[in-house]
Amino acid sequence: MALADAGAMVRNENGIATVVSILKKRFGDNAQTGKSIREQHGHTTSYVPNQAPDLVVFVENTEDVQEVVRLCGEWHVPIIPFGTGTSLEGHVNAPAGGVSIDLSRMNRILKVYNEDLNVVVEPGITRKELNEYLRDTGLFFPIDPGANASLGGMAATRASGTNAVRYGTMRENVLALKAVMPDGRLISTAKRVKKTSAGYDLTRLLVGSEGTLGIITELTLKLYGIPQAISGGICAFPDLESACNAVIETIQMGIPVARIELVNSLQMQAMINYSKLDYPVAPYLFLEFHGSDAGVAEQAELFGEIAAANGGGTFKWTANLEEREKLWSARHNSYFACMTLAPGKQSLSTDVCVPISRLAECIVETEKDIAASGLIAPIVGHAGDGNFHVLILFDDKNAEEIQNVEAFVERLNLRAIAMDGTCTGEHGIGQGKIKFLRLELGGAVDVMESIKRAIDPGNIMNPGKILRL
Amino acid sequence: MALADAGAMVRNENGIATVVSILKKRFGDNAQTGKSIREQHGHTTSYVPNQAPDLVVFVENTEDVQEVVRLCGEWHVPIIPFGTGTSLEGHVNAPAGGVSIDLSRMNRILKVYNEDLNVVVEPGITRKELNEYLRDTGLFFPIDPGANASLGGMAATRASGTNAVRYGTMRENVLALKAVMPDGRLISTAKRVKKTSAGYDLTRLLVGSEGTLGIITELTLKLYGIPQAISGGICAFPDLESACNAVIETIQMGIPVARIELVNSLQMQAMINYSKLDYPVAPYLFLEFHGSDAGVAEQAELFGEIAAANGGGTFKWTANLEEREKLWSARHNSYFACMTLAPGKQSLSTDVCVPISRLAECIVETEKDIAASGLIAPIVGHAGDGNFHVLILFDDKNAEEIQNVEAFVERLNLRAIAMDGTCTGEHGIGQGKIKFLRLELGGAVDVMESIKRAIDPGNIMNPGKILRL
Repeated sequence: MALADAGAMVRNENGIATVVSILKKRFGDNAQTGKSIREQHGHTTSYVPNQAPDLVVFVENTEDVQEVVRLCGEWHVPIIPFGTGTSLEGHVNAPAGGVSIDLSRMNRILKVYNEDLNVVVEPGITRKELNEYLRDTGLFFPIDPGANASLGGMAATRASGTNAVRYGTMRENVLALKAVMPDGRLISTAKRVKKTSAGYDLTRLLVGSEGTLGIITELTLKLYGIPQAISGGICAFPDLESACNAVIETIQMGIPVARIELVNSLQMQAMINYSKLDYPVAPYLFLEFHGSDAGVAEQAELFGEIAAANGGGTFKWTANLEEREKLWSARHNSYFACMTLAPGKQSLSTDVCVPISRLAECIVETEKDIAASGLIAPIVGHAGDGNFHVLILFDDKNAEEIQNVEAFVERLNLRAIAMDGTCTGEHGIGQGKIKFLRLELGGAVDVMESIKRAIDPGNIMNPGKILRL
Repeated sequence: MALADAGAMVRNENGIATVVSILKKRFGDNAQTGKSIREQHGHTTSYVPNQAPDLVVFVENTEDVQEVVRLCGEWHVPIIPFGTGTSLEGHVNAPAGGVSIDLSRMNRILKVYNEDLNVVVEPGITRKELNEYLRDTGLFFPIDPGANASLGGMAATRASGTNAVRYGTMRENVLALKAVMPDGRLISTAKRVKKTSAGYDLTRLLVGSEGTLGIITELTLKLYGIPQAISGGICAFPDLESACNAVIETIQMGIPVARIELVNSLQMQAMINYSKLDYPVAPYLFLEFHGSDAGVAEQAELFGEIAAANGGGTFKWTANLEEREKLWSARHNSYFACMTLAPGKQSLSTDVCVPISRLAECIVETEKDIAASGLIAPIVGHAGDGNFHVLILFDDKNAEEIQNVEAFVERLNLRAIAMDGTCTGEHGIGQGKIKFLRLELGGAVDVMESIKRAIDPGNIMNPGKILRL
């Protein structure tokens, strides 16, 4: 029994066979049909069952992409763009089979524009590779979804992460895209400018479209100066409400925190054990400040006052790199820490996002729900954005447990939506959240469908994702 | 002879007559056919000739909008949404006649969410009315396009202005919209959350769509805390390159300037005369800093160093409200100041935007072009964004002068596009820049057209704007 209905679709066997045969001849070793490589390109990091494509093509340039798209268009064969495969809601599955276009070899940095604070890259480069390359320029790209994802994939899924509270998400940090559309044409969505009023915002239409409208082949991204000073720290709170109130006041005061992460008691327990931290168990906020030396000191001081006023423990902050990295490494390893809470179990990571005024209420209700359901499910949140994750550990061989998890996830999503929130702050819709998208936005989904039909009338671009078409 | 080809379109006389008759009965005094009111709702603040609608309906709620849209849809009659009529590229003209929907009476503030830093408003409220209302809350909405425009119109045209360099444009500051679509359905594009990955970004598709896809009937906007301290000042430079280099270094250093405006010598001359400023004529930067007391002092000091290193005069800064308001009032009155340079002439305001590394080059070439063309045309720019305006003064009865202006505007747009720039940073496409949109983005315009056809198959929503359909 599978946890999620991955939505099997009708396969066009004849078209697939033809396209596979043509592409194998054309791309030689760059076109692979081995089972393990295909399964690795179906979904591996998701709870959604794996649906492998029929062929994986490793493209090396835009012309390769156009050629594959045109051929698949002619034969009505699905195309699934693939970056690093770190998405969580079944985005790279192939429910109707077809061709996975692996963009990892299109990983060049085409041009850094230091004076303009932007960079033009191919989609396959990962965020860590980009920042490694940029280091000597004094610039960096801030968006950090945890995984070392590709920039093309991050744009396609509108990724964000820990420092979106200060720097925004991919929505705010992509200036322009080039994309191969379903008819094989290459378009350029915008010029390399900070702002423009020139027509419909195709950049933002493609950001978050999860490969269902076109394949991103080039990105122009905003960059930022590496801050003169970075400091960080953590602070315990007596309960979640107090921690959330401290977050609200911090944001209201306009303190430009770079990160403000909420960790609930169970999550902290797991991190203390896993990363050998010397802290008592409680809900915590993890913070990071970016700015001038004076600026980060001022921010930390202001936050300290807010924390104290909300019953927080002493705010321990440090500009010491080693200590800071230890804390953030514990935060980044929270997934592995969680897995130790129930060895041998499977995990399902889900996210919702609510207005921050509702965050405490939403998390507290969710904690109660977890307790009542008997689930093991720690919570960690990008609190400054009202976004939080629940990592549910469960036995994927146990039908009752699966049903329990499904019911919990449904309640979680409905709870967030009822609080003016969204069923996904940063994981995307993929296959896993299609029904919640409709519950959240109703008739707007019809408009999305009409756009999809207009741009991809053959429904060849990543079918079965976002929309039920 | 008209300066711009406003693109007259075929009128559906029968449909228009029917709709006008039905709506007059239905809306009584709220449906007006008088010539002056119709002309006032055709374009008045643009160089594009006035094309009046056949009827103006003053709607009072969303149901009114839906009723008008459904009726117009049934009879294939154009609909032109109208806020304050302060757009500049012919956005509210009625090239095929039809019904102007005046949204100015839908001007309520529906709810302020202090803790979440957002507000829900109707589209007819102006930015000044909103900020007046918000004053006691300690919050404000920053986007300032100069005119006291309506928020609905600002969203529809993706407006920005002087402080976009710090706060972004309408693109970054609209969280969610409600809109009546061409079939009369009301959709909600997103929930009231800071971020979301739930499907296609319909919010950003409607922002900047200039009324061609739907009519915005409700907006959820980001708010910001009124800064503890605001200071500002101005600084002369020996030439435009030096001023632009100071801007580039300011942005590169990450100084969070709230405003950094470039004024060329002719523009400064006009402002000195008009606003009786005691400054020598030169290119200037006007700056404003927002932050804590210590923060704005630090920003001003850092900028002073950058200015000095680029040959700038002494940077005079002040936290004194009266002095600051005098300077910014001179900047905001720059249009009237310019008009005194050539009394009796007409004006054409146009804008382009380039990467800031190209800004000096683009403005210097444009100044040379102005001199060679014998035009009177001062320049003012939102330099931190690479966006600048040219206000061209000309005799609209003189065919040769009109031709001269048209040729200059064409060269300006092509120059910006050739420098990786856009034909409009903030004025929009409307009727005036349709041909430049195609020159700028090529095949992407076909994708825009397919979206327009899918969402508005009858082409009733503000036809003849953005796209040549």
